Amino acid sequence: MSPLALFALFLVQLFFPVKASDFTHKPRVTLTDKDVSFLRIQLPGNNSHIELLHGHLDNIVYATGRRHLFQTNFHSSRTSIMSPVFGEGCRSNDPTSPDCHYNITVLRKTEDKNQLFLCGTNGQQQTLCCYMNPSDDLFNCTPSNGNKDIQHINEREPSLLIGSSEVKEFYTTHSGIEGSVGINRFGKNRLWTEKSGTEQRYVSLVASGQREDHLQDRLYAFYIEKNRDSRWDSDLWVPRVAQVCTADLGGPKGLLQFRWTSKLSARLFCGDHESRQYFTQLVDVNTVLAERWQDTRIYALFRNSWGVSAVCVYTIVDIDRIFKTSNFKGYTEPVPSPRPGECVKDSTKLPMDVLKMVDKYSEMEEWVTSGPLLVTHHYYHHIRVDRVQGKGNVLFLSLENGGIHKVLERDGRAFVIAELQPFNYIAHILSMMLHSSTGKLYVGSSRELVQIDLDSCEQYGSQCEDCVLARDPYCGWDGNHCTTATNKTIQDVENGNHQICSNIFRGVTASKVYFPRSSVGAADGIRVPPSSKYFLNCPTLSSHAEYSWRHHGNTTATPCISPGSEHQCLLLIESMGPEQQGTYSCVSEERGYHRTLVQYQLQLDSGATGLVSHRLAWLVLTLVLTLLC
Amino acid sequence: MSPLALFALFLVQLFFPVKASDFTHKPRVTLTDKDVSFLRIQLPGNNSHIELLHGHLDNIVYATGRRHLFQTNFHSSRTSIMSPVFGEGCRSNDPTSPDCHYNITVLRKTEDKNQLFLCGTNGQQQTLCCYMNPSDDLFNCTPSNGNKDIQHINEREPSLLIGSSEVKEFYTTHSGIEGSVGINRFGKNRLWTEKSGTEQRYVSLVASGQREDHLQDRLYAFYIEKNRDSRWDSDLWVPRVAQVCTADLGGPKGLLQFRWTSKLSARLFCGDHESRQYFTQLVDVNTVLAERWQDTRIYALFRNSWGVSAVCVYTIVDIDRIFKTSNFKGYTEPVPSPRPGECVKDSTKLPMDVLKMVDKYSEMEEWVTSGPLLVTHHYYHHIRVDRVQGKGNVLFLSLENGGIHKVLERDGRAFVIAELQPFNYIAHILSMMLHSSTGKLYVGSSRELVQIDLDSCEQYGSQCEDCVLARDPYCGWDGNHCTTATNKTIQDVENGNHQICSNIFRGVTASKVYFPRSSVGAADGIRVPPSSKYFLNCPTLSSHAEYSWRHHGNTTATPCISPGSEHQCLLLIESMGPEQQGTYSCVSEERGYHRTLVQYQLQLDSGATGLVSHRLAWLVLTLVLTLLC
Repeated sequence: MSPLALFALFLVQLFFPVKASDFTHKPRVTLTDKDVSFLRIQLPGNNSHIELLHGHLDNIVYATGRRHLFQTNFHSSRTSIMSPVFGEGCRSNDPTSPDCHYNITVLRKTEDKNQLFLCGTNGQQQTLCCYMNPSDDLFNCTPSNGNKDIQHINEREPSLLIGSSEVKEFYTTHSGIEGSVGINRFGKNRLWTEKSGTEQRYVSLVASGQREDHLQDRLYAFYIEKNRDSRWDSDLWVPRVAQVCTADLGGPKGLLQFRWTSKLSARLFCGDHESRQYFTQLVDVNTVLAERWQDTRIYALFRNSWGVSAVCVYTIVDIDRIFKTSNFKGYTEPVPSPRPGECVKDSTKLPMDVLKMVDKYSEMEEWVTSGPLLVTHHYYHHIRVDRVQGKGNVLFLSLENGGIHKVLERDGRAFVIAELQPFNYIAHILSMMLHSSTGKLYVGSSRELVQIDLDSCEQYGSQCEDCVLARDPYCGWDGNHCTTATNKTIQDVENGNHQICSNIFRGVTASKVYFPRSSVGAADGIRVPPSSKYFLNCPTLSSHAEYSWRHHGNTTATPCISPGSEHQCLLLIESMGPEQQGTYSCVSEERGYHRTLVQYQLQLDSGATGLVSHRLAWLVLTLVLTLLC
Repeated sequence: MSPLALFALFLVQLFFPVKASDFTHKPRVTLTDKDVSFLRIQLPGNNSHIELLHGHLDNIVYATGRRHLFQTNFHSSRTSIMSPVFGEGCRSNDPTSPDCHYNITVLRKTEDKNQLFLCGTNGQQQTLCCYMNPSDDLFNCTPSNGNKDIQHINEREPSLLIGSSEVKEFYTTHSGIEGSVGINRFGKNRLWTEKSGTEQRYVSLVASGQREDHLQDRLYAFYIEKNRDSRWDSDLWVPRVAQVCTADLGGPKGLLQFRWTSKLSARLFCGDHESRQYFTQLVDVNTVLAERWQDTRIYALFRNSWGVSAVCVYTIVDIDRIFKTSNFKGYTEPVPSPRPGECVKDSTKLPMDVLKMVDKYSEMEEWVTSGPLLVTHHYYHHIRVDRVQGKGNVLFLSLENGGIHKVLERDGRAFVIAELQPFNYIAHILSMMLHSSTGKLYVGSSRELVQIDLDSCEQYGSQCEDCVLARDPYCGWDGNHCTTATNKTIQDVENGNHQICSNIFRGVTASKVYFPRSSVGAADGIRVPPSSKYFLNCPTLSSHAEYSWRHHGNTTATPCISPGSEHQCLLLIESMGPEQQGTYSCVSEERGYHRTLVQYQLQLDSGATGLVSHRLAWLVLTLVLTLLC
């Protein structure tokens, strides 16, 4: 293209700079249960809603169906079904009464290995919560004192159980437009939010982690709120973050009594200001706790109406800065002291002007902003993030078809390591749970739970280069295999530079590295009749590699014919002739790593027929001679 | 999926309703120069900017390069290059002076067959315009009286030349942020806009067509304006439409003298309010004039940052209604009379309050809105629309790769008839021109002009059904061929219902219709050696059809293997054996129309070798007997 034409194109780009078709984050490999072994367990029934919880023992996973609690042991492949009975009257009196039809709405682990915290909500909007021992025969949920005043809890509401066994506090949210929409706390110091007036949907509740000054511990809620701006070019929902102090005791009698005195909210922004590409549909949130609470990272998954997903990362310190320094929206007078949102020992003694301000001006003027780590045309539903010590973070993003993308985050950039396909059918993933310490990911569809080993490595290939190009921080090359990463294995998560292999294994025969015998197909001659059609195929693994065919002396390569979804590289021979004879090699190139995958030797078959007939001729001749003589 | 799971999905859909991946408008067929003949003419040089203009004679097309004017005759395939010299001094004195380097910025036809209207702008921002005769040897542009005061005109600015040969007025726009940004008129009654303060980019100037009361004739400008709202979630540009009266003479001395007194502007909206999917990047506009000026349709092509394009259609009456009835933005007092924007005989005599209001409150509160006719992931650059009498409108949309989509608009719905690929390489289409009366579309890249016949029909196939399924309003079935539509040919643009063929041609042998002999491949047996690989292929045309393979008695069909961009349907036989023998048919189904495209007969080749060797054995036997006896 001429410089002038480039300039013209530049003019167009200047006004409408970025194009979404550039967002191609193709997973390097696609792995099904032919490549990796997934442990799968059938769930009874056809569940519309699943929540997963890892038990205190490895391999034990709890899943909540609508009415039942499944305890699944992936070690023994056994599932036991528990049907909790809520309310004292429901066991003895009339368990079939509609008032006794409780749906399980909350399931949390407690510090006590023998106890789960469970809530159920019935059609009368009554919620009962209790501690239960899953190994008890009588699975009866009768609330203890502290849990008697728990209000109506919906399905899918985020919740947190904080504190020691003695002083436990249960936080949950209430989505909707009516009732105490917002963050609610049950336990000794019950607090709730007043009616908000605008519809809110809660996505996640996050504890900041323990601060140096325990008094400053905060909780953050991530939610979407119906946009008060109803112009035709405004978004339907806007994403927000709210904070409350865990030490909040509410206001004094008359002003904010039993209400949060520390609740502030700010607009969340995920996008690029320059190109005006931004995302408002907050879908899921996952937190990676850090040793220092300030470094705790919030991974927020957004989508937009155009089929594009984005992941933005916020740190607690980013969010805190806005709440601590921003102006208050619509408030122009001097800010009183203590500044609203600061955590204090006894909030009932807060000055009146502070309480009045919190009541009226709790929204920040500044936004909590982040540029996306990943923008892609894939439509993701869930996000889970694992920290792989010293190697970077790994994101797990569920797709609409039941697949999962395993994505490496390194230096603020994303690399899609693999698409995992744990289901053998188009599935809707209802829940996804990461159990970092055992290196397992669990996904649930309406009828199956699947356990995925995060450190499954052999599928990447049998060469050191295969292992390094994969850039999987769970895997490394131990000299013989691609295997679970240790401090002795070789890997280059940062760049996927395969040179690391030849540098270290200098001395190993070059042929092993560049022409791996095991993966090169047999080069025995194949006889093809004249004018016949024939095809050659070659298995492909990496979508980041370029595959092509070379025909003996020919310097120009023939590109592959790749049938849609199949991992194959075909070469079609329309009509066999003398020119089609010779050696065909299927070669791949990825980040400078060249290799030959299969080799075929084609021969014109005219000679073969001759060979058979000669032999037959001799047979006939011998027979005739024997008969005659 | 269970009803409960569906309900859960419904909840997700409720909050984030529409997904862009649904916008699949796949062209039914893809046509290259192998299928259709395109007339192509090379352009000298490598042009960064091309404007096309059809001459008074058929087949004559003018194209402006930067400095040259090309006169191309598609009949004789000849191009003559004209290099106009602007300014009297530039011919005689110093033609190499930078002041003489004029770029052609305007080229318009006039009523006089021998005259073109041409403007050039030099590096000093001086513009000269003149009437020129392209057959003159001396191609010197010296402005006549009326064109002496023309201000600086940029490349790519829309312009209009209106009026009879005596009283001609030249309208053009000025994009940018400084100078008289807006609509400018040159000629007897020069008028221009004052500095706007916000950046504007003009896309199109449209004349409404002559109204009953000639005084009410208006001109409309379509443009984008930098958004004054700079919030992070607001768009960078907003699309607008402005009106001016052609009868406007400007205000009296002191207020709006030589300025528009009738200029109003309104926000253009293209999108769906419910789903909040909207488009703000106005890219191109094309007008289809109607007999009644009210029905004149404006086709506006929009894009967004997510790789999605949309076409919205506005009528002049839609736009007029907003200008005539909407409140004025920011203005709450009673509207004076005559209402600002009404066209009056002598605008210099307008009351002061009207002039003051036009000066300060020229923006409408209401928006000119439209729901999109077409929303697609294709990234279009230009739009041209042809009205096919009584059949609907046909849109031509240029793609980024040099292709063009031919789209039928019928009852407010779009059907992508074909993707035309006039270039044999990835080209950037710089200009596209429709010449409706001769049924030709012209496209220009930096180095080629291509003429496309709109009524090319044979490529759709040799059957009546092929012709009807194509739904091309330019084509119809004449009883023997798919050919240019007349009032005697058969077509069903509305539904593409192929039944119309069997209804009318009842009596023609059924086999001809359902198993067209001509297109079914030879069914002679093909001998394939045992264990050999083999493949069958079948050409495919319609991407809306489903293709599959059937193996003799087998009731289940094998789906095609379709290599990426190639129009083929493959069947791979991995290993030939007795079970692989028999007849293979490649069948297609589209809107209920079934047909067999090719048929192959495969035989195991073991017999063939036997046959040859038996013959050889007899030969040997005869030879031996002859020798012995």
